[in-house]
Amino acid sequence: MPHQGKPCPIGDDLRSNLRVVMVATRNPLNLGAAARAIANFGFSRLRVVSPYDVAFREARSAVGAAPLLRAAEEFAAVADAVGDCRLVVGTTSVGHRELQHSIRRLEYGARLIRRALASGPVALLFGSEKFGLSNEDLSHCHWLMRIPTVSADLSMNLGQAVALCLYELARDAKAAAARPGKIQAAAAAETEQVTALLLDALRRSGYVNPRIAASTEEKVRRLVRRLNLSARDAPVLLGMLRQILWKLE
Amino acid sequence: MPHQGKPCPIGDDLRSNLRVVMVATRNPLNLGAAARAIANFGFSRLRVVSPYDVAFREARSAVGAAPLLRAAEEFAAVADAVGDCRLVVGTTSVGHRELQHSIRRLEYGARLIRRALASGPVALLFGSEKFGLSNEDLSHCHWLMRIPTVSADLSMNLGQAVALCLYELARDAKAAAARPGKIQAAAAAETEQVTALLLDALRRSGYVNPRIAASTEEKVRRLVRRLNLSARDAPVLLGMLRQILWKLE
Repeated sequence: MPHQGKPCPIGDDLRSNLRVVMVATRNPLNLGAAARAIANFGFSRLRVVSPYDVAFREARSAVGAAPLLRAAEEFAAVADAVGDCRLVVGTTSVGHRELQHSIRRLEYGARLIRRALASGPVALLFGSEKFGLSNEDLSHCHWLMRIPTVSADLSMNLGQAVALCLYELARDAKAAAARPGKIQAAAAAETEQVTALLLDALRRSGYVNPRIAASTEEKVRRLVRRLNLSARDAPVLLGMLRQILWKLE
Repeated sequence: MPHQGKPCPIGDDLRSNLRVVMVATRNPLNLGAAARAIANFGFSRLRVVSPYDVAFREARSAVGAAPLLRAAEEFAAVADAVGDCRLVVGTTSVGHRELQHSIRRLEYGARLIRRALASGPVALLFGSEKFGLSNEDLSHCHWLMRIPTVSADLSMNLGQAVALCLYELARDAKAAAARPGKIQAAAAAETEQVTALLLDALRRSGYVNPRIAASTEEKVRRLVRRLNLSARDAPVLLGMLRQILWKLE
């Protein structure tokens, strides 16, 4: 299969430019889920700003993606956590009314972030489960990005939100258009052999009316073609038909 | 902002054709997260196959997305849960070795599913947290879809996996290309007023060397243009400069 290895068109060097910044996260499961998503999509840098101490400690000791969490950098303030970044992007739910910033849809915002990653570090901020990013947090952001959900009333699970943003950043647009390697089709001769044995079985079973045998034969041939038999399945089907024919004799 | 309401190019009637089928889910939080993601991306049908009873009961009584969970249909077997579907797609982690099926990357698989939704119900299956879909479950699937993660070793949180698949299904490719409404830029006259006041303040502060005043003026003018002031920010900046000038006098 093509696209098997690297999931995305951003190089490793550019992906290391992303800093996922979790601000005031409460639930250790969400820090764990964020760390997993970072690793899953080939990113590497996690920063936490004033997390609930217990949450951070619990998350660090959890199984899976532990190395990334252990390497997480802790900061007391957003300003410090984004200090080395050339672009700072806040994430927001649809309901958030933040008129000071332009809000970009995830599909478009991710494109801008990918471009910015080529010229320096970029921070992507996620607020707390309950309150999101505060106005103070938001004042450090150049613009905001929102996940396009149907309703403003529904909230997004924090771990899901991180995964969605990183997926879109790592998404390979070409993969959507490309036809991945298909299963090899059976050769016409094999398909015809299946047709012949099936017809034989049908004749022996009394399915074929001799007066319209030619027409039935064509129908069966067309039906077998529509099955789009694979090179792997054709011999299996032949084996089955041979067994049935043996029993019919 | 464009694209504010409906997040996706699939109509509501087509979205109602999707059945998210959760097989043997153990954790009630994951059923809740799946229900939330279904609602967030405008889908509506959740089916559960032999869930752990406690998980299903707990999830049903959880807050948020409760109506969708209460309306969830319960089945004893995969065959029953997908009975009315024209296409059955299983989800898999990268590590899964299932040679009987073609495996499609999420970006491409979602395109095929969107197309299939136009002609009838489609089932999208998710296996249990620990084991994924069993070989028996998989035998009901036409093909498999995988989320393109970097490494086969990392597992994906079930709630995140559901959210990612539904996001990709609802994703609007046009939104990625479109430039959303930008913040209105300041008029040139306002920008020039900012430049004039800033120069005035610089002169009064002794920043401007009179011998190269013309060149400094040009530099400052160019710098202010590069700030790309918005129509909202220009008057604020003018107010600040006026105050500073008042103090400098």
